[in-house]
Amino acid sequence: MAVTVDKSWVESANDSATDFPLQNLPFGVFSASELKPRIGVAIGDRVLDIRACAEQGLFRALDPLLQQACTAATLNGLMSHGRRAAATLRARLIEILRIDVAPEIRSKVERNLRSAGETTMHLPTAIGDYTDFYASIYHATNVGRLFRPDNPLLPNYKHVPIGYHGRASSIVVSGTEIKRPCGQTKAADAESPAFGPSRLLDYELEVGFFVAEGNRRGEPVSLSEAESHIFGLCLLNDWSARDIQAWEYQPLGPFLAKSFATSVSPWVVTLDALEPFRTHAFERAPGDPQPLPYLNSESNQKRGGIDLKLEVLLSSRRIREAGQAPARISRGNARDLYWTLAQMLTHHTSNGCNLQPGDLLASGTVSGAAKESVGSLLEMTQRGAEPIPLPSGETRKFLEDGDEVIFRAYCEREGHPRIGFGECRGVIQPAS
Amino acid sequence: MAVTVDKSWVESANDSATDFPLQNLPFGVFSASELKPRIGVAIGDRVLDIRACAEQGLFRALDPLLQQACTAATLNGLMSHGRRAAATLRARLIEILRIDVAPEIRSKVERNLRSAGETTMHLPTAIGDYTDFYASIYHATNVGRLFRPDNPLLPNYKHVPIGYHGRASSIVVSGTEIKRPCGQTKAADAESPAFGPSRLLDYELEVGFFVAEGNRRGEPVSLSEAESHIFGLCLLNDWSARDIQAWEYQPLGPFLAKSFATSVSPWVVTLDALEPFRTHAFERAPGDPQPLPYLNSESNQKRGGIDLKLEVLLSSRRIREAGQAPARISRGNARDLYWTLAQMLTHHTSNGCNLQPGDLLASGTVSGAAKESVGSLLEMTQRGAEPIPLPSGETRKFLEDGDEVIFRAYCEREGHPRIGFGECRGVIQPAS
Repeated sequence: MAVTVDKSWVESANDSATDFPLQNLPFGVFSASELKPRIGVAIGDRVLDIRACAEQGLFRALDPLLQQACTAATLNGLMSHGRRAAATLRARLIEILRIDVAPEIRSKVERNLRSAGETTMHLPTAIGDYTDFYASIYHATNVGRLFRPDNPLLPNYKHVPIGYHGRASSIVVSGTEIKRPCGQTKAADAESPAFGPSRLLDYELEVGFFVAEGNRRGEPVSLSEAESHIFGLCLLNDWSARDIQAWEYQPLGPFLAKSFATSVSPWVVTLDALEPFRTHAFERAPGDPQPLPYLNSESNQKRGGIDLKLEVLLSSRRIREAGQAPARISRGNARDLYWTLAQMLTHHTSNGCNLQPGDLLASGTVSGAAKESVGSLLEMTQRGAEPIPLPSGETRKFLEDGDEVIFRAYCEREGHPRIGFGECRGVIQPAS
Repeated sequence: MAVTVDKSWVESANDSATDFPLQNLPFGVFSASELKPRIGVAIGDRVLDIRACAEQGLFRALDPLLQQACTAATLNGLMSHGRRAAATLRARLIEILRIDVAPEIRSKVERNLRSAGETTMHLPTAIGDYTDFYASIYHATNVGRLFRPDNPLLPNYKHVPIGYHGRASSIVVSGTEIKRPCGQTKAADAESPAFGPSRLLDYELEVGFFVAEGNRRGEPVSLSEAESHIFGLCLLNDWSARDIQAWEYQPLGPFLAKSFATSVSPWVVTLDALEPFRTHAFERAPGDPQPLPYLNSESNQKRGGIDLKLEVLLSSRRIREAGQAPARISRGNARDLYWTLAQMLTHHTSNGCNLQPGDLLASGTVSGAAKESVGSLLEMTQRGAEPIPLPSGETRKFLEDGDEVIFRAYCEREGHPRIGFGECRGVIQPAS
């Protein structure tokens, strides 16, 4: 679907700094004082009440089942209709929000707009399963180097999109407070472990993506079909307690070091909105193996990547009290992922595993080649050996109580409105 | 609650060989030709329609919300009321099924009994999250020895109940066919991996347990409260593709080697029914560390274990065609688990992770000290080096297409009716 550079009659959507121009239209779930959770779409500094639009017949030309899905309290139903169906809704939304819409439509739609400030955002879907990948080769190498200096990257990495199952119940929406977890940790020089609050609490900058149509158990999704099963993207913070992780992760992988909380940004940016920013997949180094045939196609190679800029900001209590802005401590790009979203999804289903609408997959920590583009404090501070300075005069090895971590993401290029993701935020609360 | 040795007016429940005497009364979800899925309780060779009983007012003395939960299509609602509430229902069921019940009640109840053979069983709950532990020290040692002969058990094992998140969407009920998964595998002498059907397909004999009342995020469940959050137990087969697992599991643990399917037995045997078979926790060897305080209590030590006998049977196509009985290839006991169910649940929530009613936790492969009591072919055949003979004249290193794996479990002791789990079955279908 060609995206036009049209403007909207919602004026704030035409501001060059907005994350949510007419060309974006991300989906989310919001509530307001008198409204229970329902589907909304972000446009400029407003949220369009999709349920109200559906009930008023504004989508009457669309599939009746799709219209019904618009009145639900989560996006699962909408996602289950698949990406093509959602694109018909997106096209209709562009139509009714465009500057040249008929005045009678505009006045109907206008009544369904709310100021974003009046809304409370919720998780976009009821997440059945959550899977976290490990798709940044820079991250895998950085972390591997801390544990195995001579042999940082394991032999399977360039062949297998490594992933693991995460905890779905503790996924929370941006803004939810994150309590510092307790757990077993063992200091290198200690004889035995102790139980207490984690001292090495970290964030992980990730890109999440939601499953549109699912697949049946036993029926893998081919690489050429994979993107039709991806509804859209969000930001994800895979909060990680490094000391708990180091002691527990052998041999079955991370467990309690991660499952206390995972934050996601509330707006799901559709793959359709990201079309203008598609780019080639990661360029493998000479001598690197080609992906096995089930993970390889010319179109994935040519357009499997997304030129999506990512930022990490940190604000301490002292920074906020001084009225300072959060410090931007890192910038990355989803283009740096070794595996594309389509490859991750296809690999996930290659054993017959069934994905369900609304399931969440995530990229794993997105780190780039430069030190300024790593996606965790573990990497940035070399496991605490090189603390980073904050504008408040403080330093950080890992997160302290009161610290707020803020992720932002956006696509931009000459001649196209910026497509933003909004924010994924979380403040660390003391352990109890 | 003291369990009496009373008999039931359902005659088959008094048969000494039944899994489902009056003292058991496991919960499940069944459908029949004219009935959509609903809650049932097994009694002898019958299934009692709990929804019908609730609708007819047979539970009218119970909490109205509990009565309502009895009419649902899954056990989640019933579980959410907690173990104590479920015990009131159990007490009422014993009352109405006991031989001395008033004739007018009996005739009402009788109309709600169906022959088990007419019913189709379903998953007992909508499983939000599934967590698999690794609680058998014998299994961990056996598997560790295959990979690290000199140092089989990792240093964290005796301190941490090791676990990992599993895939919830691909959990299926006993009897569902299991398609051999495809995946990446790499032969030791191969330069690079290949994609194709797994050649080292295995079962894992496990005990599953369902969460009753949940806990809020950030609020751990103490060891003394843990059992009040456990509704009941089932059998679980954690089907495993060993060749896929060996190549993919570093560094984040098992993923596609497991997520193609996990089978569970349909009947949830309540902890209350298992009370007479509670036993001391695993007896640690001299010099073994004591559990950290959050995982240690006298009552857990004294009664945290369950004397639950487990059996694995295997039947090949040839065995079935010859009219032979499945071969019993292993016998274990849940008593051999290093960690108790309560310790697993408490550890799981110790970081603040929230469990939800109907969530499934599992023990990991239950292996005992003897070779005849190991819970996987990997251990039994030493990764295929020592094939086992079948009565048909065949041998097995790993599972072949057409093989059926059957798990059974029961508690028995002098003076108490046998408390059985029924079966967990699955037949291997060829890869597609």
